[in-house]
Formats: sequence, C-alpha cells, structure tokens
Amino acid sequence: MAIEQHPTTMSLEDLCVNTIRTLAIDAVQQANSGHPGAPLGLAALTYTLWDAFLKHNPHDPAWPDRDRFVLSAGHASMLLYSMLYLTGYDLSLDEIKHFRQWDSLTPGHPERGLTPGVETTTGPLGQGISTAVGMAIAEAHLAATFNRPGHAIVDHYTYVIASDGDMMEGVSHEACAYAGHLGLGKLIVYYDDNKVMLSGLTNEAMSEDVGKRFEAYGWHVQHIDGMDCAQVAAATVAARAETARPSLIVARTHIGFGSPNKHDSPAAHGNPLGVEEVKLTKAALGWPTTDTFYIPQAALDHFRQAVERGEQSEADWNHRFAAYAQAYPDMATRWTQQMSNGLPASFDSDVPQWTPADNKGEMSTRVASGKVLNAIAPKLPSLMGGSADLATSNETLISGETLFERGAYAGRNMNFGVREHGMGAILNGMATHQGIIPYGGTFLTFSDYMRGAVRLAALMGLRVIYIYTHDSIGLGEDGPTHQPVEHLAALRAIPGLTVFRPADANETAVAWRVALTSTKNPTALALTRQNLPIVDRTKFASAQLTERGGYVLADADGGNPEIILISSGSEVPLAMEARDLLAERGVRARVVSMPSMEIFDRQPQSYRDEVLPPTVRKRLAIEAAVAQPWYRYVGLDGDVLAMSHFGASAPYKILYEKFGFTPENIAQRAQALLAR
Amino acid sequence: MAIEQHPTTMSLEDLCVNTIRTLAIDAVQQANSGHPGAPLGLAALTYTLWDAFLKHNPHDPAWPDRDRFVLSAGHASMLLYSMLYLTGYDLSLDEIKHFRQWDSLTPGHPERGLTPGVETTTGPLGQGISTAVGMAIAEAHLAATFNRPGHAIVDHYTYVIASDGDMMEGVSHEACAYAGHLGLGKLIVYYDDNKVMLSGLTNEAMSEDVGKRFEAYGWHVQHIDGMDCAQVAAATVAARAETARPSLIVARTHIGFGSPNKHDSPAAHGNPLGVEEVKLTKAALGWPTTDTFYIPQAALDHFRQAVERGEQSEADWNHRFAAYAQAYPDMATRWTQQMSNGLPASFDSDVPQWTPADNKGEMSTRVASGKVLNAIAPKLPSLMGGSADLATSNETLISGETLFERGAYAGRNMNFGVREHGMGAILNGMATHQGIIPYGGTFLTFSDYMRGAVRLAALMGLRVIYIYTHDSIGLGEDGPTHQPVEHLAALRAIPGLTVFRPADANETAVAWRVALTSTKNPTALALTRQNLPIVDRTKFASAQLTERGGYVLADADGGNPEIILISSGSEVPLAMEARDLLAERGVRARVVSMPSMEIFDRQPQSYRDEVLPPTVRKRLAIEAAVAQPWYRYVGLDGDVLAMSHFGASAPYKILYEKFGFTPENIAQRAQALLAR
Repeated sequence: MAIEQHPTTMSLEDLCVNTIRTLAIDAVQQANSGHPGAPLGLAALTYTLWDAFLKHNPHDPAWPDRDRFVLSAGHASMLLYSMLYLTGYDLSLDEIKHFRQWDSLTPGHPERGLTPGVETTTGPLGQGISTAVGMAIAEAHLAATFNRPGHAIVDHYTYVIASDGDMMEGVSHEACAYAGHLGLGKLIVYYDDNKVMLSGLTNEAMSEDVGKRFEAYGWHVQHIDGMDCAQVAAATVAARAETARPSLIVARTHIGFGSPNKHDSPAAHGNPLGVEEVKLTKAALGWPTTDTFYIPQAALDHFRQAVERGEQSEADWNHRFAAYAQAYPDMATRWTQQMSNGLPASFDSDVPQWTPADNKGEMSTRVASGKVLNAIAPKLPSLMGGSADLATSNETLISGETLFERGAYAGRNMNFGVREHGMGAILNGMATHQGIIPYGGTFLTFSDYMRGAVRLAALMGLRVIYIYTHDSIGLGEDGPTHQPVEHLAALRAIPGLTVFRPADANETAVAWRVALTSTKNPTALALTRQNLPIVDRTKFASAQLTERGGYVLADADGGNPEIILISSGSEVPLAMEARDLLAERGVRARVVSMPSMEIFDRQPQSYRDEVLPPTVRKRLAIEAAVAQPWYRYVGLDGDVLAMSHFGASAPYKILYEKFGFTPENIAQRAQALLAR
Repeated sequence: MAIEQHPTTMSLEDLCVNTIRTLAIDAVQQANSGHPGAPLGLAALTYTLWDAFLKHNPHDPAWPDRDRFVLSAGHASMLLYSMLYLTGYDLSLDEIKHFRQWDSLTPGHPERGLTPGVETTTGPLGQGISTAVGMAIAEAHLAATFNRPGHAIVDHYTYVIASDGDMMEGVSHEACAYAGHLGLGKLIVYYDDNKVMLSGLTNEAMSEDVGKRFEAYGWHVQHIDGMDCAQVAAATVAARAETARPSLIVARTHIGFGSPNKHDSPAAHGNPLGVEEVKLTKAALGWPTTDTFYIPQAALDHFRQAVERGEQSEADWNHRFAAYAQAYPDMATRWTQQMSNGLPASFDSDVPQWTPADNKGEMSTRVASGKVLNAIAPKLPSLMGGSADLATSNETLISGETLFERGAYAGRNMNFGVREHGMGAILNGMATHQGIIPYGGTFLTFSDYMRGAVRLAALMGLRVIYIYTHDSIGLGEDGPTHQPVEHLAALRAIPGLTVFRPADANETAVAWRVALTSTKNPTALALTRQNLPIVDRTKFASAQLTERGGYVLADADGGNPEIILISSGSEVPLAMEARDLLAERGVRARVVSMPSMEIFDRQPQSYRDEVLPPTVRKRLAIEAAVAQPWYRYVGLDGDVLAMSHFGASAPYKILYEKFGFTPENIAQRAQALLAR
C-alpha cells in the first residue's frame, strides 16, 4: 500500500469521522452508483450519536432493549453500512466493497432482514421517520405495560436521521403530528438540514421553517451546527433530558463535505463523486489519496469498542431482566412470549362460530371482525391498534381497553386521526420493534393513501393486519369517492401481502386466525359494511377451508358442474342464490368461494384442480370490483361480472341492482356463457 | 303548510344562515344518511363568503374568471348544494330532496362534472385543499402569462373550506407547504376548527397548532370566531389584502350548531340528527318545526341576487376581455384556445421520428419522452408541469422555460419538491381550472404515494399526464424499494386511467399524442431508465399502431403463428430476440406489442381477434412486473413470464438475467408452453 500521507496528526474524532466519510465515498465510487454527499455531511453527527449515546450490541442486533437507529434518508445507506461494519456488526469489508451488487448485504437502500443492524427498510422518503414513530410507540407501550418500580426492562430511545425529502413527504407530517400529540419523549430526530435536494437547492421547492412546524406539533426543537460533534452531543443530552415531548434537532450540515468541487451542491447528491473528485476529497480531508477502503487501525480499534460496550450493556440488562423475572415471573414469561412473536396457546379459543340461527342469520363481516378481535384480544395482549378516525365504522375498538395516549401508554386502542399513511408506517414500526402485533383500520378505498407503507410491510415481511371495511359499492350513499373498485386488484398485486375478502362471519374468523399465525407477511382484510347471510355450514362446506384460500362452498347437485361460479365476499351469497336459480333451470353450477387468491395460488396443483377442474372451462367470476384479478381463473372461455367503472351515490341495494349484481343477472350471465 | 312560528323577527342575515342550516339537516334526514353537523357550524361563514365576496355567475358556472370555491370537507356536501340551489344554479329543490339517491345531482360527496358549480370532487380528505393549491397556481400562471398593464383578464381568488381531517392528511402538508413556498396570495383557506372528528373529539388524536404550522409554511394566518359573520368578513378582507402569501383563517365553529343535544358532539358528524332532534334544532334556531325544506321567500330573494350580480360581473369581464382582444388579438386567441381545452393545429409537427440510425440505435423511453415534450412544448403553451424532485431523472424539464416560482409565475417548469401526493392533487387543480394541460413526474414506484389524487383525476375525467420513469427492475442499483413490480397492475386497475408502457422511442411519441388528445381522461406513461433499441419500422409494424393499444409488431414468418409473445415496454425487444431464436428452432412466433391494455380493450372485437387470433391459444406474456393484468390475454392455456416477488439491488442487466428476462429464457418458456 502506497500511502502518500498518514492522518497521524488528526484527532481521534476526526480520524473516525473521516473514516466513515472515505469508506462511504469509496464504496459509492466502486459501485459507480449511489449517494456520497449525505454520508460526507452526516458523518460527524452519526459518529457522535453512535459513539457517545447509542445503546446497541453489534454482536446481538436483536437484543430487545437496544436503542433503535433509523436512517430515514435511506439513500445515504453507505453511512449506515459504514457504521455497522466499523462498530463490529456481522458485515464484512468485502460486503462494503460490493455495495449495490447482486447478492450483497449492502443494497442501494437499507433492507431490514437482509443486513444485521438495519432496523427498518428505508429509501422511500418519509417512511423511516414515520416508522420510527411506531417504534417509539411500541417502546412507550411496552414500558408502560411491563416496567415495574425499580425494574425498567424497557427503556430505550429511537433515533432518526431524516432529510429534507422526509420532511416534505406528507407521511412525515401525519406521523410526527401524531408523535407530538402523544408526547413521545424518547423519540429523537436529527434533521439533516443541508439545503440541497436531488434536483437542486431546497430553496427551489421548500421554504418552510421545519423547526417551527415541529414546535406546532408540540415537539422540543433545537438548532445546531451538525458538523460540530460537541454541539451534536450537547443537543442529544438536552433531547434525552426532555421526557414529555419528542425532540427535533435541526442540524445544519454540508452535503458533500470535503469535496472541493461538489461541496454544498446537488452534484454530490445522487451520483458518485468521480475518481478524481474522490482523490481531491480525500486530500482535503487529510487522507491518503491513492488507497481505497483505507481504514486507520486506531479508528477501527476505537469503533470496535462498541462491541465490548454493547456486550456489557446487554449483560447488565440480562441481569436486570433476571431480577424482574424473579419478582414478576408471569410478566417475564409474557414478555418473552411477546418479544418472540409467539401466540399464547389457544389464543383463539373464544372465537365464536356463528350459525344461521344467530343474529337473525346475518352479520356484516366488519361486525364479525370486531367480534373476533374482541374474542382474541383478552388472550393476546400483544394485539394493539386502531383506526384512522373510523373506529366505530371499522369495528377496531377493543372493549374494556383504554386509549393509548399521552401519559397513558398502556392503552391498546389507538386513534390515529385521519392519517392513513402515517398509520401504515407506524404499524410497520410497531411490528419491527417486536412485542406487538399491530392492526389498523380505514375504509378500503383509503388503502390507496397508505400503499407506500403497505408495500414496505410486504417487502419487510412484517405481521401487520389491515382492517379495510366498506369494501365495495355496498358502502352505498357516500358515493364513488368512498367506494373501492380497483383496490382489491391493487392490493392483490403487492407481492407478499395476503388479501382476504371473507364471504361471511365464519370465513372472517378463519381469516383472522391465518393473519395472526402468518408471522412473516402482512394481511389485509376486506370487509363489508352491509350484512351478509351467515352460511349454513351444516349444508355447505366448512368455513375452515378459508385457510386454503379458495374452496368449493356448494357443488352442483351430483357433483358434476357444467359451470363454476367463483366469487368472494359479499357476492358469494348472490352466487349461491344464482346457483339455486340455475338448478331450477336445469343447470348444474358449482360455487367456489375465493376469500384469498394469494393463498389459493399456493395450494398444490391437485387441490386447485379439485376446486377448479381443468375440464370445466365455463367459469363465471363475480366480484363488485374490477375484473383484472379474475382472468387468471376464468381464462379465455369464461366471463367476469365486475365493475368496469366507478360506483355511484345511492342506497347499496339499488347500486347492486343497477350494476347487475343480482342472482338473476348472474344466472343469466351464466346461461349466456354456457350458450356461447 | 302548518307553520308553528314564522321567523319574521329574525335579521335577514340570520334568516339566510338558518335557511342554509335547515335545508342541510332536512336533506340529510330525508336521505337518512349524511353529515349534518358541519353545515350547521359552517353556514354563517359560508353565507358571508358567498354573499359578500365570492365572484361567480350561477347562470354560467364555466365563466373563466370566476372565483373558485372548494369545499374540501366534502362530507359537508349539503352545505354546498344548499348554496348552489339558493344562489340560483341549475340545481332544483327536488334534487336537494333526492340527496344521496340514485341518479340525483346531489351525491353523498360533491362530484365535478355532475353538479353545476362543483369545481372539484371532494370527500377523500386532504384532496380539496390540495387541489385548490393547483387552481391558485393555474390562476397565478395564467395571470402572469396573459394579463397586460390595464388589462387584468385573469384575476380571481380560490377559496377553500377545510376540516381537521384535511389538516391531518399528509397531502395537505405537501400542497400547503408548496403554496407557502410559492407565495400564492390569492389562495384563502378557512379552517373549520370545530374540535370534533368523526370518531371523537379532535383532542383524542390531534393537538397540533394548525395556525403556527401554516405560519411555518409562510402563510398569513388569522384566528376568528367562525360563527360571527362580521369577523368572517373582516378576516376575508384582510386575507385578500395580503397579496404575497396564501391566507389561513382559523375559524372556531361549532359542529351541530343549534342542535340542543348534538351541538359540539361527534354525534352530529356522520349521522342524521334524527327526526326529533331536527325539530328541536329548528325550534332552537327559531324555525318552523313541522315543515321540511322550508325556505323563507325573503331569504331566497336575497340569495338569488347572486344571479344578477354574477351576470353583471361576467358582463363587465366580457367588456374587459373585448378591450383586451382589441389590444392583444393574438393573446386573446390563445386565451380562448387554452381555456377551451383545444390543441393548436399541428402542435405535434415537430415531434421527431427515430430510426435505428439515430442515437446509436437506442434510447431510453424517458429520454424519448423528454424529447417529445420539448418538441411539443413550444407549440403548446398550455403544457406545464414538472417533477417531484426528479426532473433530470424524469426528463420533465422544458428547456428554455423558466421555473414557476414566487413572483415569477410565468414559468412553466415546476419543482414540486419531494411531494408526490401533493403534486397529484395540484395537477388536478390545474386541470380543473382550465387553461393548462398539466403533467407531473416521479419514479413509477412512487405512483403509490399519489394514488389518492390519480384516482380523483380518473373519476373527474381530467386530462392530466403522469410521467412515471424507472418503470421496472431496469432501475437497477437503487433496489427493491425503488423498483416497481406491482404498480403497472395497480394503475391499470383504475377505471378511466390510460396506462402506456411504450416499447421504444417512437411508441413513446405516439403515446404522448394520445395523452394530449384525450381530453377526458388522465394518462400515465411508464418509461424506462435504461436504453432500448429503436425498432426498425421499415422492417416491422408502424409505431402509429400504438394508438390502438396493442398491435402485431412482428408476425411469424408466413403469418401463421404457433405461439404469440405478448409484451410491453422494455421486454418487447427481448421478445423480438426470442422470436428470432424460436425461428431458428423452427417455431413460428408472433410478437404483439401491448403498450396500452385499456386502449386495446376498447378496439372492435374484429381488430382484437386479428391481433390475438382466438385459435392461437399458446400465448406467452412477458413483462417485468406482476402477472395479474396479463391473464386476460393468455387465458388458461397460456403462460406469463413475470415478477412474482420484489426486485433486488444490482446493475439492471444482472437483474434481467437473474430474474429470467432474457431472450433465451423466453424462447424456452415458449417451447415449454408449446410442449404442454
């Protein structure tokens, strides 16, 4: 190694900070792709936070009481990877050298589950900071629930680095306004105020006073020079001392710091500096210019002290937890179970089974969902959530439980306000924290507002449950703005998300069970506003078959169908009536209930062929939504009775009639298909 | 009519205000569905605004220089319908009586295009206020462009009534922060500060200081008693006097005002008051209690003066416009053309046609899109837009045009900041205003963030153009958070939205033409980051066929295909190479390019059968996205080469290889299908 100049006269602090910087720009340059500017500007701040404050154990990234660190500005991923490597996580220098390459542990944006120490997947702006609010909520709730006098087994901070892009995104408004409302004192956000966006200077598009905005939310706000480690440290101390409000530290930084030609410029944002500029930057930082990935041993030694500190911290915590377990053995057992994602035995033993003799023979699936939730919640204390201001409509309230609010964090009922996207991100944060199974409700049509967060739940494989009620034109008078039409298709398109649209109360109960036992994916429940008949399971197939995604609910008499009616949710009872009409007319029709396409598609071919025999090509799908997802099952020889346009404002029975969702019209379409 | 007590001693102001109130609660009660509380609380404010300030002509709701009024709290629709009926729009009392019924002009939430005087569809919270920002942008731009000294032909306000729900939604943050940045002095928002949400009191979920938040955005903020007409008037005068900043008027109101038992209560929010409570409310307001839909003649006479005032205002404007047309005939002609949605003759005559001899034979479709945009923009001055901080990536800049910014509103290039949802709503507002054809860009994956607004564009039938680049795993190193997989399916599911995914530069040009000439629907262009070959149109079919949605790009030799390869965008060239491989192996394959399913599906059956002959059942669809939309074309006997999972971070060529999007793999899948 030819080293032109050794950074021997540099302070240890500068040595460490510049190690972070140069590692980041080298990796971006090697990848020939990435964002070098933010790591250069944020290295001092991040170093200070990790060196002096962050409680973590690089050798046990899953230690429950670690502080959470979220790099909301996910494009600055090399900053995080540098910290993880340097402080001794199981991430090699070789991985750093393979930044943004196939099969590496260092993808373009941090991915939870892939890289040890990455708490949540970030990159889509606004998500990280909003997810962090969910982590802080989880901490507050678990602390309120489990801690006992003299036994603080839950006691950690959530730290976030957020960018101007995070601040511009609406989801950050939603989550941070809610965080201020809740007074989450252990949430500390550093705002990387670098005045530069990807496409230009922030003053081309942004002139809000971010600090004042957060004060309006009820946050504690400080302004500092983010390049000055002492100021970062002092502000962090003050933020931690403020226990009743979340803290925002507006840190003025300089993107591309050290780069003679790209300092404070958009040119440093989204592209490698260039081989020459990397050298110039290293020279300006007093660094060897010909080496790449040069790491001074003194810096590495210092960084790696994090391992010993972390192991000591965790050992201390283990000691405290042992004392807690002795004093409160039941709570300790519960803690271990909650944190391990486990479900208590027979968590679902109180879930009702309904028959046509119950409730006058009908029940909306949203009401059924509420009853299931309330049957499970007492036995599953980790279940916690609420609605985006539609609790009574969504049936999301756990009766007998209090509201989760400022100073009363033991509550399990959340009122997210009219903040669907924020809710989605917060649910992700609660799930990533561990210890909580979060759920959130809104009208199905407003699932659109929160897709950014739903997608990340699917990408991370988080157990989050969405309660989407009012799932069709059955919503009625509120009209087309509130009637979902395309949303089932849009949700079914998301890889890894399970969508259920149960056809009656009992299918709803099974869907909940599957959602809870599916620890590695989110589940969306699409539920009706209107009542649906409770299927007579003594005459027709068991609702338990819901767990196979699709099943023969009622076969043709004699079992040799000419035509298959495939449907979901509120249209299944119509298909059942159509089957009767067809039988009267001498047509043998089978009804397949398809509550979850994703699960059905995973069944063995043999099962799928039993339900949908390849020889029966006359297949009519019925769903009060767009047809797109159904062609997979009906093919070119089938038909779909669907919505090819938006809904309308009127009582729902009239809409079903006008739009052709009637047993008679289904029967006619079936007969027309047979005659084709 | 038995009238118990006549409101004869009431002031005219109270008489009018209570007429609005009682009309609203009667209609909600008759519908047995709706939101009575907000109209009761907002009647005084709305009356004052409409009576003393709003410039409008009930007999010509399309008059270009009218003030725009947006009821962002769309659930309070009966407030708006009351005003429209009372001030003399073409909306009968009978329609009011059919509130929320099938085929009425008074749906649950206001719908643009259905009810005269409704400027934009509202209901999904946050959309109205954000759309209004777009209207104010349009006004500012058109004023800067068309007005001349002494000739202010564009000079109107945009007024908004917004609720706490609007304020909680993230989209309002995005749009309002941008409005403050731009200093839109003629945007005036009344915040209905009634302390009540649907599910409870706002203090359960919201404690932000909305006024301070808007001050942080750079708005002019006032606080008033919104029940006091004099205060409303004074604040409105002050807001209009403030020309350099948008204005927020925080108006303390009382939901359910007058209702003895539901005043200030969530019970007044989302349900009818009930027959008895309606009577009690009327009594409290000094109103006849047994009549329904009772309208004092004196009130009606006063309201209807709006007609004469409006006709006079418009006549004055016509006079001024005539003078303008005399002084600036060319600008007047251009004005008329822009406002009528028209396109100048040969607006597209400079659009290039590319051959394989150009640009080394390849070009990304995003670059082609940028070139088309820049070829059209000089001839189409109404074309205006930008990107959510990705201008250079999205190729959305019009060269030679300035930035639309504070005090420089003639600019046609917009920098929306990292605010996709706000951008979407703003584009809607620009389109509803008329005079502008708006476009906006981001990465395709972030179309998720703005679906709430895209849906409304489709529902309203607005010509808005979305430039969604980086449309697949072809985005490469940024990884799965930035790689769209489900978004094409999700967008194609939206009724009324046309989605194009062009396969080369020339298809891109045709897609742009179709987008611009489709005046009644939005269009999304899904464009590649990476270069694609420019198809040799002397050997293969004309790119003009793009306007049919799908076409035979290359038939099998001899024209009698055994198998059809159907594809879109960046996978079409792979299918073309696979066709060559298959030909070498003696397999006759046709390649169908399918840039727009929506348009193809609208073609006559005969054309569709020509492209996809019913007898050829072996069909393989290829798209680097989820398979859902393709089964419609391939049926049960076909196959889809698609993405069933999220992408990964690596150079894109490696991803295409790893995920099987190669000519060889396509050929093998085709052969396997033929062998099946």
